[in-house]
Amino acid sequence: MNAGPLAGLRVVEISAFVAAPLCGMTLAQLGAEVIRIDPIGGNIDVNRWPLTAEGNSIYWSSLNKGKKSITLDLKSDEGQRLATELICAPGNGAGIVVTNLPTRGWLDYDTLRALRPDVIAVTLTGNHDGTPAVDYTVNPSSGFPTATGPADGVTNHVLPAWDVAAGLYLALAVVGAERERQRTGEGQSVTLALSDVMLATVANLGYVAEVQVNGTGREPTGNHVYGAFGRDFATADGRRIMIAAMTGRQWAAITTATGLAERLAHIEPMLGVDLSTDGGRYQARDAIATVLTPWFAARTLSDVEELFTRHHVLHSVYRDFGQLVTEDPRCSAANPLFAEVDQPGIGTVLTPRSPLAFGRGEPGPAAAPVLGADTTSVLTGHLARTFEQVNALLNSGAVSDSSCGVAP
Amino acid sequence: MNAGPLAGLRVVEISAFVAAPLCGMTLAQLGAEVIRIDPIGGNIDVNRWPLTAEGNSIYWSSLNKGKKSITLDLKSDEGQRLATELICAPGNGAGIVVTNLPTRGWLDYDTLRALRPDVIAVTLTGNHDGTPAVDYTVNPSSGFPTATGPADGVTNHVLPAWDVAAGLYLALAVVGAERERQRTGEGQSVTLALSDVMLATVANLGYVAEVQVNGTGREPTGNHVYGAFGRDFATADGRRIMIAAMTGRQWAAITTATGLAERLAHIEPMLGVDLSTDGGRYQARDAIATVLTPWFAARTLSDVEELFTRHHVLHSVYRDFGQLVTEDPRCSAANPLFAEVDQPGIGTVLTPRSPLAFGRGEPGPAAAPVLGADTTSVLTGHLARTFEQVNALLNSGAVSDSSCGVAP
Repeated sequence: MNAGPLAGLRVVEISAFVAAPLCGMTLAQLGAEVIRIDPIGGNIDVNRWPLTAEGNSIYWSSLNKGKKSITLDLKSDEGQRLATELICAPGNGAGIVVTNLPTRGWLDYDTLRALRPDVIAVTLTGNHDGTPAVDYTVNPSSGFPTATGPADGVTNHVLPAWDVAAGLYLALAVVGAERERQRTGEGQSVTLALSDVMLATVANLGYVAEVQVNGTGREPTGNHVYGAFGRDFATADGRRIMIAAMTGRQWAAITTATGLAERLAHIEPMLGVDLSTDGGRYQARDAIATVLTPWFAARTLSDVEELFTRHHVLHSVYRDFGQLVTEDPRCSAANPLFAEVDQPGIGTVLTPRSPLAFGRGEPGPAAAPVLGADTTSVLTGHLARTFEQVNALLNSGAVSDSSCGVAP
Repeated sequence: MNAGPLAGLRVVEISAFVAAPLCGMTLAQLGAEVIRIDPIGGNIDVNRWPLTAEGNSIYWSSLNKGKKSITLDLKSDEGQRLATELICAPGNGAGIVVTNLPTRGWLDYDTLRALRPDVIAVTLTGNHDGTPAVDYTVNPSSGFPTATGPADGVTNHVLPAWDVAAGLYLALAVVGAERERQRTGEGQSVTLALSDVMLATVANLGYVAEVQVNGTGREPTGNHVYGAFGRDFATADGRRIMIAAMTGRQWAAITTATGLAERLAHIEPMLGVDLSTDGGRYQARDAIATVLTPWFAARTLSDVEELFTRHHVLHSVYRDFGQLVTEDPRCSAANPLFAEVDQPGIGTVLTPRSPLAFGRGEPGPAAAPVLGADTTSVLTGHLARTFEQVNALLNSGAVSDSSCGVAP
């Protein structure tokens, strides 16, 4: 197994919550050495829900897979000195830090650059002016809560989509800036505002131009796909299924599989629409659904699935998180994405590697570290401290190491 | 202005819909030369809604900003030969293709590798076994539609979050594989399944382990933040506002700004919860909301915003897409993310650059090309065709160029 496309990179992560930890984890899953620095006892996200019965954070372990963890007293001069020394340590692939913490003082780009002129500092902020924002407060202004779910009211997303996108943008920032450093020898500061991720995405998907050009925002469409035919239906056994037709062939598959082509054909003259186009099928969506609803209501999920698989209907089954884990074969070790991994403090859990499958190889699924388990090995391995010096740091409280009997 | 961290890369994109086009656009926004190849007349997404009154796709132009566009008869041997010649053209930063089309035949990795041994081929599929899936069908199985919105029923997302994440993963694949090629001289095939993006993300956020370890899936929480206090409230003037407390300081800001600390303090003994913790505030969320609701209902949005800004309450205002564009100063040319750009066929629209702000510079906001406008310049510039040869190709119908009077 190849070490991965990012082998040789060393990234220091000082982070909390979702986006910045996801960045570091994404880089680690592609072969980078990622060292997460936390205050002694952990950062503000160390006990974030969901917890196991023993009180360990499933959230924290899920977002820190494949990293090393060191704990420093970041309020002390000595802790800050060790952190900056690690960020700015020599080495062709080192000298990279990712953070979503305020970067004033010891973590300031200019401070770091004085220690290593080609340092790469990637920073996530809330808004572009530096004011705070989190996924929960970025989303309401995006327009999506008004367009999602029932037509009246607002529906918050549960998937922290802006945090996920921001984490991936941050990973791209690290690899992009390192590419430029390889070519020019120059480091740089890269910043990303979480609300700019939202704004750019809303514009990239056409919503901003639609308001400006057509003078109207997108109409809420409930569970309907916009601009094509697609929506959910209930089956006889109380399950729900989603179907969608993004192409003429996919639409033909629906009419063939259901045997309802003749009935559906009456919709064209009835409404004066052209069902051979995505737009026509979108305009006729309620009429189409009226014809299809009793067909689904008369059949069990397994009957529908058998027919739809045979006729290549683009479809899927609604599952809650429990059903996803217990029912869906893609969510199991039968999918090369996953392996059962022993996660300290949590248990044996289905653990993903990167969804990117590099032909030349990359690291497999890995557990998250125990908080502070790598402090001694990083100080001795990367900062050339002797064990005596590490002991002195442990005794002074400037650092802690959970792997050598000192409480993290 | 620096050309951007990905200057020198040339990426050929053969794509449709959201994820793969977003990949190419993301790379172009960081300085790569991205050439989109389409069939003559455009790919299946060329007329996708929303449209302008004239029938031009706002969707297509929004997802192809900063690229070049060439149109080839991809069903003909000559068109396929030109496409593979462009993908495999010599040059240190060339030899890269991104696609979400089936890669059998002329677009197969082994076929391309025979023409350029170090080619990088990045391919998006639906599922890891190659079967089709789109964002609309990946999402229902993710667990999120059951957990989002009202407790009964399912709520489809409107933001195509899996496509957005997949597009960013694909961009990371390109830059990661090119890094490995710089180091080793070797190209590779990289694949990404859209459903693996979903599955990895669900696991990365802890939902899979929660089911396995705690035996229960996440409870639906409507518009409440999970594991902390946060939700929406209605103001006296019919607007909605979101507040969240992810830290003790943010919780204190809410109690101070509303002046309701004394009333809220009764919740602790009433329910036996500890409001100094995220978990306690989550457990008491309905009681907290009961105390706060009349406070919001008695005040206008502007009164609440003034107080919340002064007291540093983490909050935001719900906006539909129209209100986002007309009300939110972040969604304007006052934000360095945006500029007003003339988009051919669409009009002058607020256009974003990359949300990543590289200190050493990167391209500014750019328009999308007109379909097929760059065919001649790419064939003469990159494939060393003479104008006579291009004319012969145009006359034979193997290629088209919208910039020289031949219909795309």
